[in-house]
Amino acid sequence: MPYYIGDVIRNPEKLIVRAPGEFRKSGIEVRLNSRVEELDIKGGRVLLSGGDVHPFDKLVIATGAEPLLPGVPGQDLEGVFRLRTLHDAHRIKSCLEKKKCKKAVILGGGFISMEMCEALRSRGIEVVVINRGRYPVNRWDAEFSGIVIDLLRSKGVEFLQNTSIVRIEKEGGAPLRVVTDRGEIEADIVMLAIGITPNTGLARSAGIKMGESGAIAVNFTQQTSEESVYAAGDCCEVYHRIAQSWVYFPLGDIANKQGRTAGNNIGSNPTRFPGIVGAHAFKLFHLEIASTGLDEKEAVRSGYKPVSMIAWAPSVSKALAEPGDRTGLKLIAEPGGTLLGAQAIGREAVRKIDTLSAALWTGIRLDELTMLDLAYSPPFGDAWDLIHITARLLLKKL
Amino acid sequence: MPYYIGDVIRNPEKLIVRAPGEFRKSGIEVRLNSRVEELDIKGGRVLLSGGDVHPFDKLVIATGAEPLLPGVPGQDLEGVFRLRTLHDAHRIKSCLEKKKCKKAVILGGGFISMEMCEALRSRGIEVVVINRGRYPVNRWDAEFSGIVIDLLRSKGVEFLQNTSIVRIEKEGGAPLRVVTDRGEIEADIVMLAIGITPNTGLARSAGIKMGESGAIAVNFTQQTSEESVYAAGDCCEVYHRIAQSWVYFPLGDIANKQGRTAGNNIGSNPTRFPGIVGAHAFKLFHLEIASTGLDEKEAVRSGYKPVSMIAWAPSVSKALAEPGDRTGLKLIAEPGGTLLGAQAIGREAVRKIDTLSAALWTGIRLDELTMLDLAYSPPFGDAWDLIHITARLLLKKL
Repeated sequence: MPYYIGDVIRNPEKLIVRAPGEFRKSGIEVRLNSRVEELDIKGGRVLLSGGDVHPFDKLVIATGAEPLLPGVPGQDLEGVFRLRTLHDAHRIKSCLEKKKCKKAVILGGGFISMEMCEALRSRGIEVVVINRGRYPVNRWDAEFSGIVIDLLRSKGVEFLQNTSIVRIEKEGGAPLRVVTDRGEIEADIVMLAIGITPNTGLARSAGIKMGESGAIAVNFTQQTSEESVYAAGDCCEVYHRIAQSWVYFPLGDIANKQGRTAGNNIGSNPTRFPGIVGAHAFKLFHLEIASTGLDEKEAVRSGYKPVSMIAWAPSVSKALAEPGDRTGLKLIAEPGGTLLGAQAIGREAVRKIDTLSAALWTGIRLDELTMLDLAYSPPFGDAWDLIHITARLLLKKL
Repeated sequence: MPYYIGDVIRNPEKLIVRAPGEFRKSGIEVRLNSRVEELDIKGGRVLLSGGDVHPFDKLVIATGAEPLLPGVPGQDLEGVFRLRTLHDAHRIKSCLEKKKCKKAVILGGGFISMEMCEALRSRGIEVVVINRGRYPVNRWDAEFSGIVIDLLRSKGVEFLQNTSIVRIEKEGGAPLRVVTDRGEIEADIVMLAIGITPNTGLARSAGIKMGESGAIAVNFTQQTSEESVYAAGDCCEVYHRIAQSWVYFPLGDIANKQGRTAGNNIGSNPTRFPGIVGAHAFKLFHLEIASTGLDEKEAVRSGYKPVSMIAWAPSVSKALAEPGDRTGLKLIAEPGGTLLGAQAIGREAVRKIDTLSAALWTGIRLDELTMLDLAYSPPFGDAWDLIHITARLLLKKL
């Protein structure tokens, strides 16, 4: 549960972990500490480490993803952590407390890194982020990512741009030393958050087909290339309705939907997973940051010539707005006027992106978007919503 | 600008009123204090009070609506106000201040009344609402309206259910006395907020056709039955995409869109107003209350046999939620599984309703809604959003 990792560190007692006993009550057997060594699909059985064999009629592969590693010396040193599992979170928390960590280095500037910055700052720990590129969360427009950098810095996070890690060192009881191409940083703890890769080893060995993204290929029922084998979650691809192609988009809500789809189909309740539009969000301190559909690079890859526009509005009617209360919205469309994607930052970012995700679901044109019927009232915005305004400005540009 | 009436009373200096001079700079002539007595459509001219005549090629009727009056003795007494115009707001404010009002009676329990309750309580004025029916804002489910009553009472508003006004009395310098079928209430000020009716007198006199609702009939370009005459705003009807019929739905955001549509078409920029799905919202103290599509009564009138379901969820992931933080969502569908409408109450009501309004725009089925791709992150809800959960529960019921 990667999304909860920040919360475990801040607030572990709130995390609900369902015990194996609870599953057993529902007639579900849970085998802990059982590693599957091989899938024998023709024989309908899985081979467990230790020699046990377990038969199946239908199999669901839900092996998730593995964190990417930077591939530098010292990445396995004590005090260097991956951000992926509940176990990682507990280990990090234990390390923070036992070692009374004062300074952390996070490698990578994606949104897991951003959530971790907030979690660590809330504990008063000094944070340095090492980012290979110029901007964090680089899926968002540079203008929005610049705001993220400003916010990080205002909260005391040091954000190093265009910086690559060379190695991590540790000598005796001294702190870790992170060597980059731009100098060295000492830290009590180092976290690796440079991305994930689907965990497909078992599936590959069993001859199951991979998609172009490198994740397990599935159809709309979550079935793999083998009739008796399904896959769900971060190990497999998902259909992107706007890109009109199968992509790798490993997010928790998608995994839930895929899992339900696979389960329904195995349980003779035919269910088709209708795909995604690419909605996602994260929160950084008070700031909402959200996105849906395609960004410009993805739009180009999907064969579009994207045009875009950014506009800003307060979260309430202008007549009621306080200084500094504003939400930014970027819309991306193809020259024919069909909406391709949206990005937002600010107090109402998630509301705008949820709304535009629903609009993208069946497809919408910018001219319709300028007239979309939304729930207007001055405490929630102006009669012309930020969505209408941005759509109209973009329409003029086409 | 009826929506701003509460704000004027709380906070008048923030209200932006564009002066006639500003219009003149844009080449727009504004004639103040000029009452149109008659429309001579064949002759292409309007007759003003005082005898002036103004010629036109195209005419836009934007006469808005008039407040409904209870039709009881005393409704015109000094200290009895309508809630409609900026002028009303200024008069109310002046009365509140000069008379140092301590107690107000509001007739009607719609959302304008609700906004006024908040505005008056924020000034420390005692408030009694007289409501003919059982529930305020009766478009919402009784369960939600019950929450509105509880909130009003917790904020010190007395809400009288199933109560009708008989007359208003005033003797000399004594306070106003509101006589109802259930007793008498003294008040320093009385506000009438029982609804509005389209202001169509001029249009009717000129032979322009009215729709079934009694408001001016228009087409998708905002043209009336007369080719040279357009109408926009609270005086005319609007096409409801879910009811698939022309309805009276007088709201500020719709008026804006209709005005732009009329202006575009007159200015040779052909524009079609695509209609509404019925989205609207109001805020009562901390509570968001929003609705879209059809309610059950409207669904029956539109020939559907509606089925509905209510579910609740916190505004953040359950693992992070504070007690009392919950949003209620009601979904209404027809037995074939097509979504007809939604109502919501709580911290995330507007986000849910904006999202569902976009989904209703092109139409969506409950099975799709259970899989709709939304921006998930624990600070904004669970992987299974309240929309997914409610849709799934309703689907089971069909």
